[in-house]
Amino acid sequence: DEIDAAVRMLLSLKLSYKTATGQDYQAGLPPRDLASINNGTKEEDEDLVDPWTVQTSNAKGVDYDKLIVRFGSSKIDTDLINRIERATGQKPHRFLRRGIFFSHRDMDQVLHAYENKKSFYLYTGRGPSSQAMHVGHLIPFIFTKWLQEVFDVPLVVQLTDDEKYLWKDLTTEKAYEYAIENVKDIIACGFDVNKTFIFSDLDYLGTSTGFYKNIVKVQKHVTFNQVKGIFGFTDSDCIGKISFPAIQAAPSFSSSFPQIFNGKENIQCLIPCAIDQDPYFRMTRDVAPRIGLPKPALMHSVFFPALQGAQTKMSASDPNSSIFLTDSPKQIKTKINKHAFSGGRDTIEEHRKYGGNCDVDVSFMYLTFFLEDDDKLEQLKQAYTSGELLTGELKKVLIETLQPLVAAHQERRKQVTDEVVKQFMTPRKLAFEF
Amino acid sequence: DEIDAAVRMLLSLKLSYKTATGQDYQAGLPPRDLASINNGTKEEDEDLVDPWTVQTSNAKGVDYDKLIVRFGSSKIDTDLINRIERATGQKPHRFLRRGIFFSHRDMDQVLHAYENKKSFYLYTGRGPSSQAMHVGHLIPFIFTKWLQEVFDVPLVVQLTDDEKYLWKDLTTEKAYEYAIENVKDIIACGFDVNKTFIFSDLDYLGTSTGFYKNIVKVQKHVTFNQVKGIFGFTDSDCIGKISFPAIQAAPSFSSSFPQIFNGKENIQCLIPCAIDQDPYFRMTRDVAPRIGLPKPALMHSVFFPALQGAQTKMSASDPNSSIFLTDSPKQIKTKINKHAFSGGRDTIEEHRKYGGNCDVDVSFMYLTFFLEDDDKLEQLKQAYTSGELLTGELKKVLIETLQPLVAAHQERRKQVTDEVVKQFMTPRKLAFEF
Repeated sequence: DEIDAAVRMLLSLKLSYKTATGQDYQAGLPPRDLASINNGTKEEDEDLVDPWTVQTSNAKGVDYDKLIVRFGSSKIDTDLINRIERATGQKPHRFLRRGIFFSHRDMDQVLHAYENKKSFYLYTGRGPSSQAMHVGHLIPFIFTKWLQEVFDVPLVVQLTDDEKYLWKDLTTEKAYEYAIENVKDIIACGFDVNKTFIFSDLDYLGTSTGFYKNIVKVQKHVTFNQVKGIFGFTDSDCIGKISFPAIQAAPSFSSSFPQIFNGKENIQCLIPCAIDQDPYFRMTRDVAPRIGLPKPALMHSVFFPALQGAQTKMSASDPNSSIFLTDSPKQIKTKINKHAFSGGRDTIEEHRKYGGNCDVDVSFMYLTFFLEDDDKLEQLKQAYTSGELLTGELKKVLIETLQPLVAAHQERRKQVTDEVVKQFMTPRKLAFEF
Repeated sequence: DEIDAAVRMLLSLKLSYKTATGQDYQAGLPPRDLASINNGTKEEDEDLVDPWTVQTSNAKGVDYDKLIVRFGSSKIDTDLINRIERATGQKPHRFLRRGIFFSHRDMDQVLHAYENKKSFYLYTGRGPSSQAMHVGHLIPFIFTKWLQEVFDVPLVVQLTDDEKYLWKDLTTEKAYEYAIENVKDIIACGFDVNKTFIFSDLDYLGTSTGFYKNIVKVQKHVTFNQVKGIFGFTDSDCIGKISFPAIQAAPSFSSSFPQIFNGKENIQCLIPCAIDQDPYFRMTRDVAPRIGLPKPALMHSVFFPALQGAQTKMSASDPNSSIFLTDSPKQIKTKINKHAFSGGRDTIEEHRKYGGNCDVDVSFMYLTFFLEDDDKLEQLKQAYTSGELLTGELKKVLIETLQPLVAAHQERRKQVTDEVVKQFMTPRKLAFEF
């Protein structure tokens, strides 16, 4: 009798569940509640952050603490940074020390597994909308290279040339051409060819036995209502855009790369990316358990500010906002002197008296990204804030920091031959045993 | 001045065009008017015909003349049949003589080109929703085989296992397994291995350098509004269903098969299919000129009626409605005797007096599909209509026609080894020069 009553109760609860959610109850799986994965919805007064636009009215930039709450991710705090240091035996990267990678999902689990000898792979990517990459585009790659080194893990890099074909006025040929040019800049960041696979969607989709199968699995488990909520698609959008999120989702699953991972299907994935890409992976993490695959973990970076100020991010389509990887030392100097928004005062006298404001000064922000020496950075901050250091002097430090970095990148890029590109882009087993 | 005025006029017309259609004017391209490709919309009292459902209240079956008007296709008339006979030097197939393939798009152009030594390729397909194929499923394949023979042309056959995965409660593995089983039945129809390529989407998409590129091109040029209008998708449908039509569209373009057609990109395609598949190809024909590719031509067949009557088509999911390719002679006999809807009278006396009705008699309909001899068919019709031939006798003729056909199919299917399947499904240059 007791059992019968319990069964009746269970059946009735299942029915209520179905009535409330429109879905059958499955043990262990959370409801596919639209609201739960659409936690990126923006309130009136909030910053606009989605894969296509970043906009805030605050000269200090986006309020990242608020974004963590809105997106439902977790802050990368001192405890986590210390744990990374212990696990790798390496000093944390300046992007961690300075809150540039500031948010994460499931890094605790990744580290717990790693501490117990269970490794993971890295996945990051780039949308090749033009040949021209700027210094901001390097942020995820610089950090990913560091992660690859200190954790000793393999990496897959997706070039979404299909996405750029769908969104822009480009031919597939042109989009692929941009992808290959971008691959050279990515390789120049110093990835280990034996542990790195780089692919263009237009190319790889037609050469992989696993990729399309995962794409169609994701596509079966995401509705138009969901992508409408997450990405703001409308009925007038083409069906290519509507189904594209599945293509960015699929590399989160190691079975998309049967050759690369030797057929292993359940390797944990960690995705370092700028936070505007999080909507794709919120969706991916919602789908993963329903197709029997592990959720990818994430580490999110802040945006790289435009030269004109942190209200928006650096954009290759606005040349004045960007320092390109192809810029000469002179171009870098001119752009910074001419366009970098200053937190300094209007006159030297006022500056000496009241000091500059590092929170809105773009040159100082860039130095937090690129100047390795913590002490030097702190000295500059104090000197600028106190008024001792003038805007021109601060800009000079930035120019002298960036010029050799960009020149060295250009030098390394010259070494990237077609043969090297082919090596990185050939599907092959990577030098790693899971 | 005259030229200036003409230019102003043209610019003003272009502006009006854009205001009216929301699209930029492009010379030679018709407006992407939703209505123009959504001519399948059904009125209240009309037959329901879409890729998933066929339903009419008329025991004679769907009103195909009305369907031609609604879909905007053309009737296959005596002139066209005579022209096919002249072009091929072969007696027209019974499916043409008897109006079973009854509608077409652009066959005049295909024949004109063929008469001028410009050939084409055939494309047909099947959705592998189960292992069990029934005799109705053979109709397009029997006709396609005949077209391949008399025109001496290559053929590609698509197994949409991805579609079945998306629409049904199936795993990708199961859908692929069904595809392979269905391939064996298709091969058993007698296709020329040197001129035929059969592929599963789940498999081929990951091995072709051309297929995905065409899919994404179609996906860029079709909006959700359009597939909503054509296929009736809703916001609750998964994004896989929403983007699937592009996957059925892409094999209409020879560049989806670079290996098969030796890289030739603009070969004309002819699609023989049941008319319920037309919505996919209306969409394809709308997109083709906008991506610089030739529109596929089509030949449409009627539906193969269910045993219970022509109000709906034979369906593998209703075993009582179907004669399966695996049925024994005894099963065939029992099913026809028990289930085939009769146009005969209630009593022998009445039948002798008033005669039977061939228009609604399912056994007679099946004979129009499978009995090759025109004279014999005409005799049966007259004898049945006059009351001379009883229902049981007509059914006996059908049973004796179908039993050896199905047995012969089973015999041929036994010859289809895994090796033969592999041959047909291996991408390779077909024995044909365009």
